[in-house]
Amino acid sequence: MSITKPSLPKGTRDFSPQEMVKRNYIFDTIKAVFKKYGYAEIQTPSMENLQTLTGKYGDEGDKLIFKILNSGEFLNDPKKKSFDFAQDENSNKLVSLISEKALRYDLTVPFARYVVMHQSEISFPFKRFQVQPVWRADRPQKGRYREFYQCDADVVGSPSLINEAEFILIYHEALKNLGLKDFDIKINNRKILSGIAEIIGKPALIVDMTVAIDKLDKIGFDGVTKELLERGFSNTDIEKLEPVIMLKGSNTEKLESLKTVLASSEIGLKGIVEIETVFDYVSKLTTENSQLKAAIELDITLARGLNYYTGCIFEVKTNEVAMGSIGGGGRYDDLTGMFGLKDLTGVGISFGADRIYDVLEELNLFPASAAQGTKVLISNFDEAAEMYALPIIQELRAANISAELYPAAAKLKKQMSYADAKNIPYVILIGGDEMNSGLLTLKDMESGDQQKLDIAAIIAKLK
Amino acid sequence: MSITKPSLPKGTRDFSPQEMVKRNYIFDTIKAVFKKYGYAEIQTPSMENLQTLTGKYGDEGDKLIFKILNSGEFLNDPKKKSFDFAQDENSNKLVSLISEKALRYDLTVPFARYVVMHQSEISFPFKRFQVQPVWRADRPQKGRYREFYQCDADVVGSPSLINEAEFILIYHEALKNLGLKDFDIKINNRKILSGIAEIIGKPALIVDMTVAIDKLDKIGFDGVTKELLERGFSNTDIEKLEPVIMLKGSNTEKLESLKTVLASSEIGLKGIVEIETVFDYVSKLTTENSQLKAAIELDITLARGLNYYTGCIFEVKTNEVAMGSIGGGGRYDDLTGMFGLKDLTGVGISFGADRIYDVLEELNLFPASAAQGTKVLISNFDEAAEMYALPIIQELRAANISAELYPAAAKLKKQMSYADAKNIPYVILIGGDEMNSGLLTLKDMESGDQQKLDIAAIIAKLK
Repeated sequence: MSITKPSLPKGTRDFSPQEMVKRNYIFDTIKAVFKKYGYAEIQTPSMENLQTLTGKYGDEGDKLIFKILNSGEFLNDPKKKSFDFAQDENSNKLVSLISEKALRYDLTVPFARYVVMHQSEISFPFKRFQVQPVWRADRPQKGRYREFYQCDADVVGSPSLINEAEFILIYHEALKNLGLKDFDIKINNRKILSGIAEIIGKPALIVDMTVAIDKLDKIGFDGVTKELLERGFSNTDIEKLEPVIMLKGSNTEKLESLKTVLASSEIGLKGIVEIETVFDYVSKLTTENSQLKAAIELDITLARGLNYYTGCIFEVKTNEVAMGSIGGGGRYDDLTGMFGLKDLTGVGISFGADRIYDVLEELNLFPASAAQGTKVLISNFDEAAEMYALPIIQELRAANISAELYPAAAKLKKQMSYADAKNIPYVILIGGDEMNSGLLTLKDMESGDQQKLDIAAIIAKLK
Repeated sequence: MSITKPSLPKGTRDFSPQEMVKRNYIFDTIKAVFKKYGYAEIQTPSMENLQTLTGKYGDEGDKLIFKILNSGEFLNDPKKKSFDFAQDENSNKLVSLISEKALRYDLTVPFARYVVMHQSEISFPFKRFQVQPVWRADRPQKGRYREFYQCDADVVGSPSLINEAEFILIYHEALKNLGLKDFDIKINNRKILSGIAEIIGKPALIVDMTVAIDKLDKIGFDGVTKELLERGFSNTDIEKLEPVIMLKGSNTEKLESLKTVLASSEIGLKGIVEIETVFDYVSKLTTENSQLKAAIELDITLARGLNYYTGCIFEVKTNEVAMGSIGGGGRYDDLTGMFGLKDLTGVGISFGADRIYDVLEELNLFPASAAQGTKVLISNFDEAAEMYALPIIQELRAANISAELYPAAAKLKKQMSYADAKNIPYVILIGGDEMNSGLLTLKDMESGDQQKLDIAAIIAKLK
């Protein structure tokens, strides 16, 4: 066997113990909030049948799906011999001959597949959350990986806007629990966007319109104007659009203006009522929490994968660090239709765990407890001390204290650097004096303080 | 878009909310014990470079590795045109042209790769645990899946047999915490097996010998004799083997017999000392725990992937249900050698989570808490009751009680079956009386009892 210098596929990552405790802290915090609001966890397999995924993410998305080679001697099938490498320029034909499975690209399509396959066992409305990795053959770059976790909650089978209101609360509670102080939960509604396209007389160009105005933050109004002109809008259209997309003021003021602008659009007005209802539910759910109300911002330029959403649309941004959105979601009215189950409405949100990680790191918001594994290391200087330590370590563990014995006699310095590297806050030193007296030396690794205590006192202190 | 009736790739599974809480209960219980003994979690990517995995699992294993197709237009490279489907019968050549990555097959090889890649950041001994899925293109059958979780703990860089002793304690504590009462932790040592092969004069046939005697449980001594004859052993050899592999008595008695039998084998005697040392450490670590000592069984026929292990070998079996092993492991002396890092000794164990799940299910050992998500559902009969319920549900959540409002006015029966299906233990009923008096009806779903209580009393009761 030749020795291969090991490396990782590009765009993938190992997570060290230090990173894992921080990642688990984020996932556990978000999951606890999902559960508190009645969401239950499911998992789906990493691989789906290729036909389950193909055609669900557009042509560009399809190209980014990681396909899995059929196993076994898949060339034995004679029809596969018909493929001619010299002639066929396109790999799609070959792929269809040798691959039937693929890695999931997101959690949403597998969830739709799950709901359809298990519809007879599910009691609707079905509130589920799911935290699993997804894979995309994207070009890797800073902050963009080929394997990353998604962290989704969705409810299907309930048209009530209480769900939208509760998702706003979930975002707020989870991000607050993670220590974030200043963030915007942006909301918009696809029906308002449809209304706007309608009143400027270009309902067919709604996608072009939203793609352009979605960039307002990045390219400014002049940039949006240029793009709208390229996409088939006239200067008159843009004049009508300007006051709408440049709306200023409080959410209430924006809604009042929109009511005037969209007075002639039935769908537009419906979108306004939906937003107002959501705001109303949020108010009733949060009588005292003015911080949350300040965080909610009606943003008419927000679009996010418009083809998909049919009602409210969400996006969350932190104001404490320059970073893209750290969460998003919305309502979709026919997700399971692609698998033959019609008219099942759903609404869901997602947390961007990798970006939240970077934000917490930059703001130094990970609690000390999220860096700590073993609580105490017992030193090991010789065989007598080792034997003396064995019942002690089990006493510590019996008291549910995470404890390690350094597994060989070694120099103090070496054992101390081991404790340091593992972020172990206490070390118990056992030498001749300690064995004679039964009073062990407990060293606090942060302060450097040492105390002589019996094991009961040590357990009381460390618990 | 045509509608595809959804299905799952064979050998893969969805996990429902009910299954997930049970699976998490198992993983959380095991992880808590790993942590208590000083093991820290890592994760590695699902995909590894194909060359990292190839050649590590034998020819049969290599065939079972799921390969991932290169993404993009991978046929553009002219050298790939050289492949001729009509001529080449073997898919291996094609695979090497179109695939560079594969799904991990176990957690051990990726761990070895991790240790070598991160050796400068790691403070040895490195105690890590890892709970992640692996994928194998095995033929699916009852209890065998193409995607399943492995649950491993290993320590590298420490030759101390304290590690072996602690793994026995970890097995015992985790399985006991899961509610198992009667199980055997079997132990053997590769050096004892080498010693046995040596004293019967067939050291080169050690693999054949162990493969045969490993089946003693299944095929009995006659079956083993037949297989040994086929594998090149003589009747004289088998006469020498019989008393060794049929050893009866306590662990101490077996060790005493072995000392006589292996008196002339240096390596065999070394294996005996290792086992005695482990037993000694276990004794010192468990002064009062006689249940554990009874569970440990020296089993000379135990082999498990012998090529791999160099010292102690473990296997765990439950005696309460007919089931294969629910855990196993051992010491290996050169795992990282395949990636160029020599002489790093390691020892590790694994829990068979899927089998443990089946055992707990069959013995009805999942605690009620492992079936419970939402604690209380608030009913919804009309708009007035819904509005009344909103501040109440947030009060419950503020007290950290997982609560749901049924998100639409519906008949009582429908809401009750929703609570039943989700295993929600309490329902709060809000009608006209309740809104007038502020005393809400709390229904205990198991007993059927109803009580009128104010919200503070309800919170006190549910907490």
